[in-house]
Amino acid sequence: MRKNTIPDHVAWTDALHAGTLPAPSSPLIPPKRGFPVSEFQDRLARAQRLMTEAGLDALLITTEAEFRYFTGFLSQFWQSPTRPWFLLVPAVGRPTAVVPGIGYPPVAETWIDDIRSWTSPQPEDEGVSLLAETMREILGGRARVGVPMGPETTLRMPLADYDRLRGLLQGFSFHDATDVVKSLRMVKSEAEIEKIAHTCRIASDVFDLIPGIATAGQPLIEIFRAVKIELLKRGADDVPYLVGAAAPGGYDNVISPPGNRPLTAGDVLMIDTGTVYDGYFCDFDRNYSIGTADRAAAHGYATLFEATNAALDIARPGATSGDLFRAMQKVIVDNGYACGNVGRLGHGLGMQLTEWPSHTNTDETILVPGMVLTLEPSLDMKPGQGMVHEENFVLRENGPQLLSRRAPEQLPEVH
Amino acid sequence: MRKNTIPDHVAWTDALHAGTLPAPSSPLIPPKRGFPVSEFQDRLARAQRLMTEAGLDALLITTEAEFRYFTGFLSQFWQSPTRPWFLLVPAVGRPTAVVPGIGYPPVAETWIDDIRSWTSPQPEDEGVSLLAETMREILGGRARVGVPMGPETTLRMPLADYDRLRGLLQGFSFHDATDVVKSLRMVKSEAEIEKIAHTCRIASDVFDLIPGIATAGQPLIEIFRAVKIELLKRGADDVPYLVGAAAPGGYDNVISPPGNRPLTAGDVLMIDTGTVYDGYFCDFDRNYSIGTADRAAAHGYATLFEATNAALDIARPGATSGDLFRAMQKVIVDNGYACGNVGRLGHGLGMQLTEWPSHTNTDETILVPGMVLTLEPSLDMKPGQGMVHEENFVLRENGPQLLSRRAPEQLPEVH
Repeated sequence: MRKNTIPDHVAWTDALHAGTLPAPSSPLIPPKRGFPVSEFQDRLARAQRLMTEAGLDALLITTEAEFRYFTGFLSQFWQSPTRPWFLLVPAVGRPTAVVPGIGYPPVAETWIDDIRSWTSPQPEDEGVSLLAETMREILGGRARVGVPMGPETTLRMPLADYDRLRGLLQGFSFHDATDVVKSLRMVKSEAEIEKIAHTCRIASDVFDLIPGIATAGQPLIEIFRAVKIELLKRGADDVPYLVGAAAPGGYDNVISPPGNRPLTAGDVLMIDTGTVYDGYFCDFDRNYSIGTADRAAAHGYATLFEATNAALDIARPGATSGDLFRAMQKVIVDNGYACGNVGRLGHGLGMQLTEWPSHTNTDETILVPGMVLTLEPSLDMKPGQGMVHEENFVLRENGPQLLSRRAPEQLPEVH
Repeated sequence: MRKNTIPDHVAWTDALHAGTLPAPSSPLIPPKRGFPVSEFQDRLARAQRLMTEAGLDALLITTEAEFRYFTGFLSQFWQSPTRPWFLLVPAVGRPTAVVPGIGYPPVAETWIDDIRSWTSPQPEDEGVSLLAETMREILGGRARVGVPMGPETTLRMPLADYDRLRGLLQGFSFHDATDVVKSLRMVKSEAEIEKIAHTCRIASDVFDLIPGIATAGQPLIEIFRAVKIELLKRGADDVPYLVGAAAPGGYDNVISPPGNRPLTAGDVLMIDTGTVYDGYFCDFDRNYSIGTADRAAAHGYATLFEATNAALDIARPGATSGDLFRAMQKVIVDNGYACGNVGRLGHGLGMQLTEWPSHTNTDETILVPGMVLTLEPSLDMKPGQGMVHEENFVLRENGPQLLSRRAPEQLPEVH
């Protein structure tokens, strides 16, 4: 095992040498909510350049993250599946929102000035004819329309309505625009990074409290409840993702809600959170040994820590997601393990808990400054007994800057 | 205004006469988590009857609520858009899950015994060929496959992968199965009702505390944070939806997160929550006048209360969603108002914050016992100054049983 060269709060010389800038240690001042209009103007200008390169006349947006990306409209109302929301982003000009009546007042508070709405719900014509009319008015009789259709995308409108829309728009053609939205969203602005960093700071502070929260005998569900409350108290807006596991020596199910089983000496406890501030996620976990860690668990943990270091060492503009994967995988395999069932060793992060790219052997996305990424090495000590470790960083010109406060080098023990 | 005939905790004679059974007042004992296998067997049997009637050989499920409905798999991991999850529900036989590797351990803990998984993420073939092979193996060379394509549904897989799947399944045809899933999910089992009732009890208790939490001068965001923490402390698993507004004399934006504006005397404060216990939502709101209510706000509130009574009076098996709408609308219009911009006056409720049906003039869904519904009359006192009121109930043979503890008859004042 290599020595930890990643500092918590101070910039060590060897950390700078390794290019791993320290995590922010400023006092917890929440970044301003929302964005200046210039942020949306920049996003639009970037989108329009990419659309022109791709030969698209417009993007048709139906999903929460993309609608918010271009408009700034933030709402939990997307929980309701009843009504579709549409945004038309033309290759030239400003976006037009076509939204249900309930959405008019909040969208009118954003920078969007062309808003059309229909009385909704109205399943017999749920915005479809209004959208088609709007598209004809703005784009004319023929247009190449981009709709995200590729990996990690969905269409948030009923399939039958999408078919009806296409039927109403003879002369229009629909093309996959995944690369456009992916290119835009993968690289974060400083204002976005600040929000993610803030969320990471809140979660880092709460993880530091866990040795005082998680004690043997307590049901896991109560520990998770206490963690969630602490995250909110410290300024998180929401905790849409708080999962984990506790099992003797390691765990294999990393995505389930906590059960009533009491935490037991010998367990490895893992808590993973996607906490949100102003619509931006952190996504990292921490592991704890309940009582003295056994050798296997300690070695598994140390391997994951070393794998993370290996990825931080090579995370530079020009490296790829695949490079990060292979750096981590090599450490895991060299230490005698197989990678866990997560299927990747980290991913993008931002308005969603997980975003493109994926650190897998086949994802050759080239890393550029402004990308916010997780490193999430996992391994199986034996079948059904695994461990996963995660950190968040933003890539800078000279290397990674940690956003999560680095986990301890050795598996922390809760006594 | 009519007198309130709806009791809080006791069964009044006139309430029974009106068929409005009292809200549960039992002590707060959380229902057992999960469901017995018999619940899933019943759901499958009902689904298979409906599929046979509709001439479908199988349902292809991709969405969280439907996957959970048939399997019991509950996870916040659906937050990650990277990986699709598939469930094949055949018209004869047991369901087969086709899930990413990370999903194998938790799905293996459900009653599903046929689980296939692929190493994911793998965007070049994200489960599509495995799903196609599985469908051919189970359904043979030709089959009529039901996919929800209608109102309130989406397909949770990339469009391009759906097209590829259809290309791989020559001989298969794909048909809208919205009516099948809608018929199933609209009518709740007693075990489901118990979970919703429990969530409603928790939220009712917390709403009772709001006069002590919401005081003039406090920023709205801090009030909402305190409410969220209180909901968690009292046993809620999550608060995915907590929205509202506070504005002088009434509000018009009912779906936005709270801002930093301090609560001010003369405001009407509305807090609306979709709180969750074991995967089941409540969805109701409460209004409060900060300081003495002005006449217009008090009259608007009383009208909404009376509109709710009008709907409770006629909520019987055999009535329709449209009947509920018209009963509420009549009271609103007779009192000199227009309905608000919500577009409907209530809806279904369960595994999602909102479900079919919608109380609109054109939704003629026939109400049957076991449906859990909201009544959500809204009105505008003047443009931009509105109010919305909401209650939750389950329909019984003899009428509605309130699940939310009824709001006070008069707009409560916080002094």
